[in-house]
Amino acid sequence: MTNKLDVSIVGGSGYVGGELLRLLLFHPHIHVKQITSVSQVGKFAHNAHPNLRSATDIQFTHPDTLESCDLLFLAQPHGYSAKNIEHFAGLAERIIDTSADFRLNDTDTYARWYGEPHPAPDWLNKFVYGLPERYRAELAQANYVSGVGCNATVTNLALAPLAQAGLLAGGRVIADIKVGSSEGGARPNEGSHHPERSGAVRSFKPTGHRHQAEIQQTLGADFDLFMSVTSIELIRGALVTAHCLLNESLTEKDLWKLYRKAYKTEPFVRIVKQKTGIFRYPEPKLLAGTNYCDVGFEVEEDGRRVVIIGAIDNLMKGAAGSAVQAMNVMLGWDETAGLEFPGLHPV
Amino acid sequence: MTNKLDVSIVGGSGYVGGELLRLLLFHPHIHVKQITSVSQVGKFAHNAHPNLRSATDIQFTHPDTLESCDLLFLAQPHGYSAKNIEHFAGLAERIIDTSADFRLNDTDTYARWYGEPHPAPDWLNKFVYGLPERYRAELAQANYVSGVGCNATVTNLALAPLAQAGLLAGGRVIADIKVGSSEGGARPNEGSHHPERSGAVRSFKPTGHRHQAEIQQTLGADFDLFMSVTSIELIRGALVTAHCLLNESLTEKDLWKLYRKAYKTEPFVRIVKQKTGIFRYPEPKLLAGTNYCDVGFEVEEDGRRVVIIGAIDNLMKGAAGSAVQAMNVMLGWDETAGLEFPGLHPV
Amino acid sequence: MTNKLDVSIVGGSGYVGGELLRLLLFHPHIHVKQITSVSQVGKFAHNAHPNLRSATDIQFTHPDTLESCDLLFLAQPHGYSAKNIEHFAGLAERIIDTSADFRLNDTDTYARWYGEPHPAPDWLNKFVYGLPERYRAELAQANYVSGVGCNATVTNLALAPLAQAGLLAGGRVIADIKVGSSEGGARPNEGSHHPERSGAVRSFKPTGHRHQAEIQQTLGADFDLFMSVTSIELIRGALVTAHCLLNESLTEKDLWKLYRKAYKTEPFVRIVKQKTGIFRYPEPKLLAGTNYCDVGFEVEEDGRRVVIIGAIDNLMKGAAGSAVQAMNVMLGWDETAGLEFPGLHPV
Amino acid sequence: MTNKLDVSIVGGSGYVGGELLRLLLFHPHIHVKQITSVSQVGKFAHNAHPNLRSATDIQFTHPDTLESCDLLFLAQPHGYSAKNIEHFAGLAERIIDTSADFRLNDTDTYARWYGEPHPAPDWLNKFVYGLPERYRAELAQANYVSGVGCNATVTNLALAPLAQAGLLAGGRVIADIKVGSSEGGARPNEGSHHPERSGAVRSFKPTGHRHQAEIQQTLGADFDLFMSVTSIELIRGALVTAHCLLNESLTEKDLWKLYRKAYKTEPFVRIVKQKTGIFRYPEPKLLAGTNYCDVGFEVEEDGRRVVIIGAIDNLMKGAAGSAVQAMNVMLGWDETAGLEFPGLHPV
Repeated sequence: MTNKLDVSIVGGSGYVGGELLRLLLFHPHIHVKQITSVSQVGKFAHNAHPNLRSATDIQFTHPDTLESCDLLFLAQPHGYSAKNIEHFAGLAERIIDTSADFRLNDTDTYARWYGEPHPAPDWLNKFVYGLPERYRAELAQANYVSGVGCNATVTNLALAPLAQAGLLAGGRVIADIKVGSSEGGARPNEGSHHPERSGAVRSFKPTGHRHQAEIQQTLGADFDLFMSVTSIELIRGALVTAHCLLNESLTEKDLWKLYRKAYKTEPFVRIVKQKTGIFRYPEPKLLAGTNYCDVGFEVEEDGRRVVIIGAIDNLMKGAAGSAVQAMNVMLGWDETAGLEFPGLHPV
Repeated sequence: MTNKLDVSIVGGSGYVGGELLRLLLFHPHIHVKQITSVSQVGKFAHNAHPNLRSATDIQFTHPDTLESCDLLFLAQPHGYSAKNIEHFAGLAERIIDTSADFRLNDTDTYARWYGEPHPAPDWLNKFVYGLPERYRAELAQANYVSGVGCNATVTNLALAPLAQAGLLAGGRVIADIKVGSSEGGARPNEGSHHPERSGAVRSFKPTGHRHQAEIQQTLGADFDLFMSVTSIELIRGALVTAHCLLNESLTEKDLWKLYRKAYKTEPFVRIVKQKTGIFRYPEPKLLAGTNYCDVGFEVEEDGRRVVIIGAIDNLMKGAAGSAVQAMNVMLGWDETAGLEFPGLHPV
Repeated sequence: MTNKLDVSIVGGSGYVGGELLRLLLFHPHIHVKQITSVSQVGKFAHNAHPNLRSATDIQFTHPDTLESCDLLFLAQPHGYSAKNIEHFAGLAERIIDTSADFRLNDTDTYARWYGEPHPAPDWLNKFVYGLPERYRAELAQANYVSGVGCNATVTNLALAPLAQAGLLAGGRVIADIKVGSSEGGARPNEGSHHPERSGAVRSFKPTGHRHQAEIQQTLGADFDLFMSVTSIELIRGALVTAHCLLNESLTEKDLWKLYRKAYKTEPFVRIVKQKTGIFRYPEPKLLAGTNYCDVGFEVEEDGRRVVIIGAIDNLMKGAAGSAVQAMNVMLGWDETAGLEFPGLHPV
Repeated sequence: MTNKLDVSIVGGSGYVGGELLRLLLFHPHIHVKQITSVSQVGKFAHNAHPNLRSATDIQFTHPDTLESCDLLFLAQPHGYSAKNIEHFAGLAERIIDTSADFRLNDTDTYARWYGEPHPAPDWLNKFVYGLPERYRAELAQANYVSGVGCNATVTNLALAPLAQAGLLAGGRVIADIKVGSSEGGARPNEGSHHPERSGAVRSFKPTGHRHQAEIQQTLGADFDLFMSVTSIELIRGALVTAHCLLNESLTEKDLWKLYRKAYKTEPFVRIVKQKTGIFRYPEPKLLAGTNYCDVGFEVEEDGRRVVIIGAIDNLMKGAAGSAVQAMNVMLGWDETAGLEFPGLHPV
C-alpha cells in the first residue's frame, strides 16, 4: 500500500458512493481507507454494493469516526456537504464533492435554483467544477472539486463545441433528455416501484430542471436553454437530444470540423456518427460502466435545426467517473487511470 | 341501474382491488356501489388506478362507512377478512374474499403455513375455494367464496388432469414458477425498487412457499410436491414449469387425450402446444388482462419425465379474474360475462 | 350474422392487421368475412396473432381470392394500396386504408416525402384523413378513409387546440417523440434483434421524419415544425414532448381553457395533468390496447416555452383504433363501439 | 508488443467473438493479431462490436488470409471447427475452440446429441474440456481446449461439490434454467424480434437440451439429469435452479461445508447465500461482464429436496470468460489475468 493515496468516501451506501468505491478499489494509485454510512455501520460494503462481494472486505464506518486522509470523496445527498465543509476540510487536503452543493459559483443563482441561501458561500469560489473537458487547467491546480450534474454533463459535452465557437449566441436550445431509474438514487419510493416504473415513459421534469443552471454557467448564458427530462425504461444512462435553433446555418461538414477539433484529443469523448448499422448515434446502453460521453449530430435538410445527440452513463461520466477523472487530473496522473473499462456488447 | 346487482369492494386501492373494479365496471350485471380504502378516503378511484380515468367517477370511502349490498368483494391483505368476517357477513348475503384467509379448509394446515391459529375457524367450511374448474358445482350453491393463490392456480390447472386420472399418485412434482413483480402488491419496498428489480432473476422462494398447501388441498396429497418461485423481469404473469416424475410412463398422445378431455369445455383453459412458431407453449405475456390459463406439455424422450407448462395473468386468473368467474357461476350468469378480453399481441 | 356488416382485411398478418382483427371480432356490428395474407395462406389467424387463439377460427386466404364485401380494410405496407386501389374499389363500397398511401392530399407533397410520384393521384381527393377529432363531419360522408401515421396522430392531437386557436402561427415546434418497437412492424431485422434493441435509446430519425407532412397538412403550415423520433424500451406506445416556442406568452390557465374546450366532448382524448402522484402526465404504458390519446402540458415559468405532452398506443389510436373509430363515424354508429377497453394497471 | 503472445480469433463477428476480443485487448500478455469474419471483411471490429470503438482499430480479415500465430481462438458456429481442425492446427500450436465440436470426448455421445457422426473423431481426445474448476491440471498440460456450454457450465459448477462427494449417485436432478436472449447469438430471427421476445417467458427447450451430455460427462452419469430451459427478459445471464432429489438427507450445514471446501480457493466461484437483503441468492444481472459463477442453496424443511442455485454471464463464464481463464491456466499465467472486472450495481 506504500505510495498509494489514502482516500475515504463519505456517504458510501448510495449508487454514486458504490461506483466510487468500485473505481477506487481497482485504481492503481489509491488505497481506500474508510467508507462511511449512517445506516450501514459495521456492515460490509458488499451489503450495499453486491457487485463488490469478492473485491473488498471493507466495512462501513460511522461518519463520526472519519479519520484524516489524503483525499475525501463526499457522496451525500445535496445540502450535507455545504453544511459540513469546514469539518471535512480539516480532515483532508483535497475534497471532491459529488453533490450539487458546490457546483454553482454564484450565491444568487444557487438561491434561485435550490430555494435557500447557500450555507457556505465563502467556499463557492474555492471549488472547481469537475468537468475536465472544460476546466482541465483549473482542476490541475485545485484542491476542491465539485461534482457534475448528470444531465448537465451530457448536455454540456454535447453543446460545448458549438458554445466555444460562439454559435449558440442568440440561439435557442431545447435539451430533451431521456434518463434511467438510477438517477433517482438508491432509496425506493412510490414512483420507483417496479410495476409502476418498468416500461414507463414518464415526463419527469418537463420544465424547470435545476441542471439548467450548471449548463449555462459552463456554456454561457447568451442563448435560451430549455430542458425537459423524461424517465424511460433504463437503469443506467442518459441521452440528450439537443435541438438547436441557431442564427447561423450549419452544414454537417461544419459540425464534423467543429466536433473533431474539440474532441480529437479527449480521452473520454467520442464522436459517434455512422451512415449504416444499428448504432449510428450515441447509445447509452453501450456505455454502462464506462466513463465515455458519446456525441453525434444531424442537421435538418434546410439547415434550420441542428440536432446534437449525447449519451453517458449517468453514474459514471455523469457522477463517479467524472469525479475520478477529475482526481486523476488534480493529481497529475494518467487521466484514464482506473477508467479503462470499455463497456459491454450486447448488454 | 335496475336489475343490476349492487356490489362493493373492500380494500380497493391495491392491485387486485383495481382489477376487480375494472372488471365490475364493465360487467353487464353489476353496479359498483362502494369501494373502500383507509388511505385514499375521498380520492377518486382513478387516483390509485389511473387506467380507469374515464371509466368511473367513483371515490374511495372509509371501510367504516360501508353499507349493505348484494355482494361484497374483500381484497384486503391476508388476516383482515378472517378477523372481520362476522361484520361483513352482516352487510352482504354473498362474499368473495380474495385474500388467503379462507382458502384452506383445515385449521391445522392453516396454522402450519400461516404460523398462527385461524381467527375464525367456524367459517372455514362455509367457504368454497374459488376455482371454477374444480369446484363449479359447489360454487353454484355457495354464498361464500375464497380467492385463489396465483401460483397455486397456475399449478392446479396445469396438474389437475394428471391428478384426476390418478397419475400423480406416488409421484414427485417440482413446480418451478416464474413470476412478475405485481405479485408483490402495490406497496414499494427495497426489493421492488426499479434499479434493483428490473432485469432481476431473483430466487424469491426456493422452498417452502405457502401456496403448496392450496395445491395439495385441491389435487390431493398422495404425491410429493416441491415448489420454487423465481421473480423475473415481468409485471404481470406467472408461468409454471411442472416437472413430473411419475410412476407410469406417459406418451405425448396420452397427455393430449387427458388434457383435451379435461379442458375441452372449459371457457378459460386452453391447450397450447404447437410444433412450430414462436408461441409453441403457454406464454404469460399474451395473457395480460385476460382470464385464460394456457396449458401445454412435453414428454422426455424416454418417458421418464413429463413437463407440464402453465401460464396465467396472476392478477386475473390468479386473483380478480377467477373471483369474477366464480361470481358468475355463483349467480348463474354466463361464466364469461365481463371476462371476454382476449389479450394483446404484440405486447 | 344478419344485420352485421361484412368486412374483410387485406394484409392481415402484420401488427395493424392483427389489431384490426381483434377489434372487429369483438365489434357489435361487424362480421369478419375474410382476412388475407400471401405468406400465411391456409393458416389460422391465431398463427400470426396468438392472442386470438380462442377468439376465432378464421384462416388466412390469398388476396387473389378476395371476395366482395361491405367494407374493406387495407393494412398492407406502404405503396400497395395505391397501386391496387381500382381493384379494391371494385370489391367494396367502402375502404379504409391504414397505409400511408392516401394520407396526403397533395401529389407534390407526396412526391417530396415518399420520393416518387403518386401511383393513383386521382384518388387522393376521394380519401378523407382518418382522424375523427379533426375530420368528423367529412368522415361521416366519406366512402374512402385513409389511415393516420402514429407519430403524426399523437402530435396532431397534442397540438390541435393550439393550432385551432391560431397560437402556433409564426411559432416553432419541436416534436420530440419516444416510440416503442412495434412501430417497426412484424418483420425482424438487425435493429430489432432483442439483444440489440432491448434497453436501447436509439436516435431513430433525428430529422426528416415523413409524418411531418401529415401534421402540417392537418394543423397548417404557418409554423415551423421539427420532429425527432427516438426508439426506447417499449413495445407499444408513443409519447410526444412537443416543445412550443410561440409568439404569444401563455399561462397554464390559458391552456386549461383551450384544451378543455377542445376535448371535453371527445370520447378518446383525455387531459392528464395532476399535481401529485406518479401518473401526472400522459403515460403510454397505461394506454396499451386502448384507443385513448392522453394530453397534458406544462409552461416554462416565464412563459417562453409551452410543453405539450401526448401519449397513445401506436397500434391503436395511432393505427387500428383510429381506423375503427373512423369506421364507426362513417357508418353512423356509436363512435366508441368496439373500442371500450380501458387499459390495464399495473402493466 | 514484444513478449506478448500473438493471438487470433476466427469467427470474430458473433457475440462470443466480441467478448473474446474485448478480453484479449485488455489482457496483459496478449497481442491480438487477426480477427476473421466472412461477412465483415475489411470492416473495423467496432462495426460489429460498438463497445470497442476506442479500444482498437483492428479490421476483420477473411479466414482465408489467416496467418500463423501462437494461439488461435475459434468462435464459429458448431460444426465448423471440427471440419477444419487440421488446417487450424497447422497454423497455431495452441487452439481454444468455443464451439460445441470438441466438448464431448465420446463419438457415440456426440452422434446421439448432434445427430451425425463426428467429422474429426481422432481429435476428440486431444481436447481438454475448458472448465478450469474441474480440469485445471489437464488444462495446464493441454494444447487444445474446448469451450464450455453456457447452460452446462452453470449447472456443472452448481452441482460439482455434490457430485464430487458422491451425493448425486442414484438421485434425480432437475435443472430448470432461465436464460437471456444473447444465448441465441447475434443473428436475428422471428423469435428474437423485439416485440415478440421482450417480456417473454418462453419455454425454449422443456426437454432434450444438448448440454445435458456435457454435464453428465463432467459430473458422472450415475444420476438422472433432467433439463429445461426457459428464455426470459434478459440479455446476458443464465440462472439454474437445480432441484435435487437425493438418497441422502442433507442439512444446510452439510451444504455449507461441502461448498466452502469445494470453492474456497476458486477465484471465480463465490457462495452467495444471505439471510437478509435483496441479493440473498445468485443473481445473474450482477454478473454481466464478469467471469464469476455465483452459487447458493436452500434445503426443503424436511430435507427431501436440495435446491442449488447458480448464476453466470453466459457470454463470459459460459463462453469467452472461461476460454480466457483456460488460456491463463494453459500458459501458466495468473488465472485471473484480464478477467478482473467486478461487475456493476445497479445494472
